[in-house]
Order: sequence, then C-alpha cells, then structure tokens
Amino acid sequence: MIRIEPVANAVVYCEGAFGSTYGKTAHGLIRRSHRYRISSVIDSSLAGEEAGAVLGLDRPARRIPIVPDLHAALKIDHWPRHLTHFVIGLAPDGGRLTPELRGAVDDAIRHGLNIDSGLHDLLSEDPDLSELSWQRGVKIRDVRDTPARSQLHFFTGKIREVRSYRVAVLGTDSAVGKRTTAWALLDGLNARRLRAELVGTGQTAWLQGARYGIVLDALVNDFVAGELEHAVWSAWDEVRPDVIVIEGQGSLMNPAYPGGYEILAAARPHGVVLQHAPGRRDYDGFPGYPIQPLDHQIRAIELVSGRPVIGIAINPENLDPSAATTACSEIEQQTGLAAVDVLREGADRLVGVIAARTKNLKRVA
Amino acid sequence: MIRIEPVANAVVYCEGAFGSTYGKTAHGLIRRSHRYRISSVIDSSLAGEEAGAVLGLDRPARRIPIVPDLHAALKIDHWPRHLTHFVIGLAPDGGRLTPELRGAVDDAIRHGLNIDSGLHDLLSEDPDLSELSWQRGVKIRDVRDTPARSQLHFFTGKIREVRSYRVAVLGTDSAVGKRTTAWALLDGLNARRLRAELVGTGQTAWLQGARYGIVLDALVNDFVAGELEHAVWSAWDEVRPDVIVIEGQGSLMNPAYPGGYEILAAARPHGVVLQHAPGRRDYDGFPGYPIQPLDHQIRAIELVSGRPVIGIAINPENLDPSAATTACSEIEQQTGLAAVDVLREGADRLVGVIAARTKNLKRVA
Repeated sequence: MIRIEPVANAVVYCEGAFGSTYGKTAHGLIRRSHRYRISSVIDSSLAGEEAGAVLGLDRPARRIPIVPDLHAALKIDHWPRHLTHFVIGLAPDGGRLTPELRGAVDDAIRHGLNIDSGLHDLLSEDPDLSELSWQRGVKIRDVRDTPARSQLHFFTGKIREVRSYRVAVLGTDSAVGKRTTAWALLDGLNARRLRAELVGTGQTAWLQGARYGIVLDALVNDFVAGELEHAVWSAWDEVRPDVIVIEGQGSLMNPAYPGGYEILAAARPHGVVLQHAPGRRDYDGFPGYPIQPLDHQIRAIELVSGRPVIGIAINPENLDPSAATTACSEIEQQTGLAAVDVLREGADRLVGVIAARTKNLKRVA
Repeated sequence: MIRIEPVANAVVYCEGAFGSTYGKTAHGLIRRSHRYRISSVIDSSLAGEEAGAVLGLDRPARRIPIVPDLHAALKIDHWPRHLTHFVIGLAPDGGRLTPELRGAVDDAIRHGLNIDSGLHDLLSEDPDLSELSWQRGVKIRDVRDTPARSQLHFFTGKIREVRSYRVAVLGTDSAVGKRTTAWALLDGLNARRLRAELVGTGQTAWLQGARYGIVLDALVNDFVAGELEHAVWSAWDEVRPDVIVIEGQGSLMNPAYPGGYEILAAARPHGVVLQHAPGRRDYDGFPGYPIQPLDHQIRAIELVSGRPVIGIAINPENLDPSAATTACSEIEQQTGLAAVDVLREGADRLVGVIAARTKNLKRVA
C-alpha cells in the first residue's frame, strides 16, 4: 500500500510529447496533482504555451507554463517554493529509458533535484544515475519498482469489515479513461457531501497523489489480491468513507493486460462503472484483437462478480461530437443504464446513481 | 520461461508432513519427477515405509524409501548416482522457512548438497545460508524467486502463430488437482501417439520437470500474460506438438487467488478442462466464501474466453466412493460433458475428447 506525502514542488518533463499519447502521464498530472505543486512543464516543441490550454481544459486551477528546458524551469522557480522534484511525465512505448531521457535525468540530478519516475525501466538500477544521485544527495523514486515481499499483504478476508459502498471503475479496454472517470466520481461525491476516497491502482494515480492504493502492475502476482484488499481496508479503517472508488487496470478480456478480476475478487465492489470507447474497434496496441461488445462485457462482469454494472462512462475518441451523442443514447437504450461522456457533460449523473446506492446500503446496514 | 535441465539425484525433505496437506510438493514429486532421480524421502515419523505406498499409488515406477534423517539418506546413496540435491518437499502455510527447516537446510549444505526450494520465503535471501552455500560451493535455487524484468517478455500477439490444439486445465478452486490432471492428460495423449507438451505454471510443475513453463505467482504482474504467451509459443516453436496442455493457477472467482483469466487471455486455449471438487463447499482456506456452482463457473469461462469447457475432472474429496460416483454421473447429466474422477478411473475419456478436437483442428487447418 502506498500513502501520500507532503506536497513537493515539481517540474514535469515531457520533451516532444506533451499533448500526444506519449505524454499521458504529464496530462494526468496537469489535470490533477495532490502530490506536487507543478511550476512548469518541459517541452521545447510547445515552449511558451500554457499546459492546461494545450489539453483543452476549461478552467485550469492554475496556469502552468510550458518551458523549453530545465534551465528555464529553474529560472521561474523562486523562494519559498523551491523546486525539489523532477517528475518524468513521458510514457514512451514499453516505458523505456531512452538516451535523451537519461541525459535529462542526469542533468536534473546535477541540479539537485529528486527524480520521480513511473517508467518501466527502473532508473535506480542504472549504476551511473544511482551513483550520481548518491553523490548529490537526492533521491530517485521508481514508482513501478516491485516492493519487497516482506512489505506486502496476503488476502485474509478482512474486506468483509469494510462498510463503505465500493464502486470499481473498470474498462472495456486499457488506456480508455478509467482513472480520469474515477477522480471525477470522487469530486462529484465530495461535492454532494459524501465522504469518498480513491484507491488508485497505477503509477499515475500515485504520482497524482491518491491517498490509498497500489501500483498493481509492479507487484509480485501472488500479492495482488491481498494488497488490493489491504488498500481498501486501510481507507475504511482510517477514514470511514461513505464511498470507496477503486481505479481499474487493463480490461477483462484484454489479451495482454487481462485485469479487473483481482479487483472484483478482492475489493469486492458493490457496483461497477464501466468505461467504454464506442469508436474503438481493436484492443489498444493489438490490431486484429477486436474488443468484445459492451453487452458481452457487462454480462461477464456480472457473472464473475455477482454485482451489477451501474453505469457507463463514455470515451468519445474517433467519434465526432454528434456521433458521440448518438452513441451515448444508443447505449442508454441498449443497457438501461446512464451512459455519460464524463469529460463533456461531467460525472453528475453517475454520481447520482452511486449516491442513491450508498444511501440504500446505509439503510440496509 | 523456464527450461528443463539434466536429471539430478535428490533427496526430498518432508519431515513430519509426508502424506498430509503440508507434504503436497513431495507428493507431486513422488508421483512424477523428470528433473530428479529421487533416492529417498526424509520424514522420521514414517521412516521405514515406502513413499508410493503411503500415497496409495497403484504401481509406483520405483520404490522410494522413507528415511529418518539426512544421515540415512546419505548412507543409501552410492556411486554412480551420487546425491547432489536436497529438495524441499514441505509446503507449509504461507511458504515460510521455519527454524527447524532452516536447520535441515543448513545441515544439507554442510554435506555439500545443492538446495532446491519452492518456498515463498527465499532461502537465498537468508544471509547465513547464502554465505554457507558460497563457502561450500553449492547452489540454492529459489524456484519462486521473482525473475529480473530484463529476462521477461511482454505479450506481443505471437500466440497466433501456434498451430497446436491448446487445452487449459482450470479449476473451480485452488489446490483442487489441476496439475495432476494436466500430467494425466499428457500421458494419455502421448499413449495415443499424439505429441503433447505441458506448459507448467507453478513451482511444483517446475520441480517435477515440466519442459516449458513459468512460476506464475512469482512474476511481476505486468509480465504474466507475455510470459504465458512466450512459454506456449516456445513449446510450439521448438517441438511442434499436436497438443499443448496448460496447467491452471488459482480459480476464476477465488477471492484470494483469482486466476485462469491470464491463461484464457494470453494462451488462448481452444478448450478448457475444468477441475472440480463437488464435496467442497467454501474456497480452500477461506471459510465463509462459498464456491460458485459448477454451471455458473462454466458459463463464466465460456463468456470470458469464447471457448468451450470440453470436460470435467472430478476431485472426490469429502465424498465416499459411492457418493463420488453419483456426483460424476449427476454432473455428466447436468453439463452434457464427460465428468471423470481421474485418479480412480484414469483420464482416458478426457483424452479422447481432446484427441477428437485435435484431429478436427488439423482438418480445418
């Protein structure tokens, strides 16, 4: 289980990729960051722009400049908010450490910055970077490093003590928007004065500062169920929230990242919000592996978990606005569930469904 | 992916547990061992007995004596089959290294034996044992150690190149007999002159000497699908078998060990043999978590994978012989599938189903 630390001042490195698929970690941090106060984003190709505007965010909380290099990032930084962290906002294919990225990390360490990385290649295993960080007295944190077994929990069944309404945000594919929806649900629930906590399951949620969670992909497989249970149970034990929202990973029938089952098994959600991109044909990154239809996936979730899908979150990619609207209403008719394009219309209708079910759970309890 | 090495001469340590649940690794090795020639089993409580007879095996290939201690094991060993390996056949709760077991390992190393262990506690991480093994020039192999990421494969989709008929042996619970059935299918297929290979997925299959396979529980989660694909693909690439049998892990709706989905997703079997214990009510080790009914689990497998369950293997535990027979025929009626108590009647009826489907696949191809 991972826990939030005090806010740090950070620059997000996203050279050549901000606004593109490979910048998705940076985008998540611009949308939301409880762990860092972000003073700038490095991407020379977009220098001078404002990060939120590039992402088309309506009302960014703060204006975050895009700067050409670390030198410029250090210049706009000033007391008392001294820059302490260099966060890798790139998510290249396979999470590899490229020579260019390695050079940027080296430079940041030489300037006394701590490094936070969600790359699959572990920076702390690079002998030169590791030695340099030791010399400069800074810390490299590999968020996807595999924790030692002695720190991990087996499943015990204590999930039964948790009285919160639990909703899992699963997807019909990976990289489909589950995490963004999960945060939107959290905000909406809090706005209705329901106490809600997120249990994150990926490196980006960790970087964003989810208070509870794990980096599921990085765990030794034997501990996945136990760590999920322990994270959900800890949120209950410490905060007693009305609702616990659990971020999904992968997707149920994904050939490469079959996921969600551990969450259904060990977090034992009362309901599932299912994220779907009606304009996507094949699994992300695996052309020729068609995504199973939505109704098929809903039946699978309900059969495996015995719990209902209570709402659909829509990712409108590949669809123009009118086609996206049509897709939403068709899915509502087909499933009898609210189908909501969360980024366009907000999560309120889904939040309403969860709020009603949370009240029911309390009435029964 | 793991590969078989030449046969070694071994003593299996199972002090106080042979014939009981905690001896299940030793039992697997007595039933079958391609990796070791086993000269004796250590268990002082059963010294003088014969290992196969204690397990009720009909026709053990060789008589393996149970001896009281390492001293006795070393005494019966002789040239040219010099004892080289001390294999831990105990599978205590949580896979922990107890002080008594630690002492036995220490003693074995001092007598120049290499240590093979499938325990969850890694012996090579014990500084004293590690130092001692270095001094004595012997090797400690922790079968459940987590391989370095650099050795592991991501899923690529190359599973589509594999032309073998693929059958997965999944279960309705963990510890229900999947591996034993998988080997029985392999023997039966070979007896019918079909070239068959097993892809093992656990530490016991590795110790037994499965030529292809992974230790699924010990992998970093992100690599589970890719390693499964690579193991199946390697068996195809090197041997071109008619049939590949894939050992399952955990069970689909198990709260603590949800498993089988990665196998369905990444190994993409053509059919599933489902192992079931009709006399078991709750999940193994989790009283109060009832096992979903067989028909429910069959539907879930078929919905998730799009492939059929083609036969049922029955574990008759908690049932007397007549109740077991009744259970088999009831399940045959209910499902329309062969339901076979493999240890009692042999696997031939299931093998026949697989052989017929393998022929069909070839005809289509």
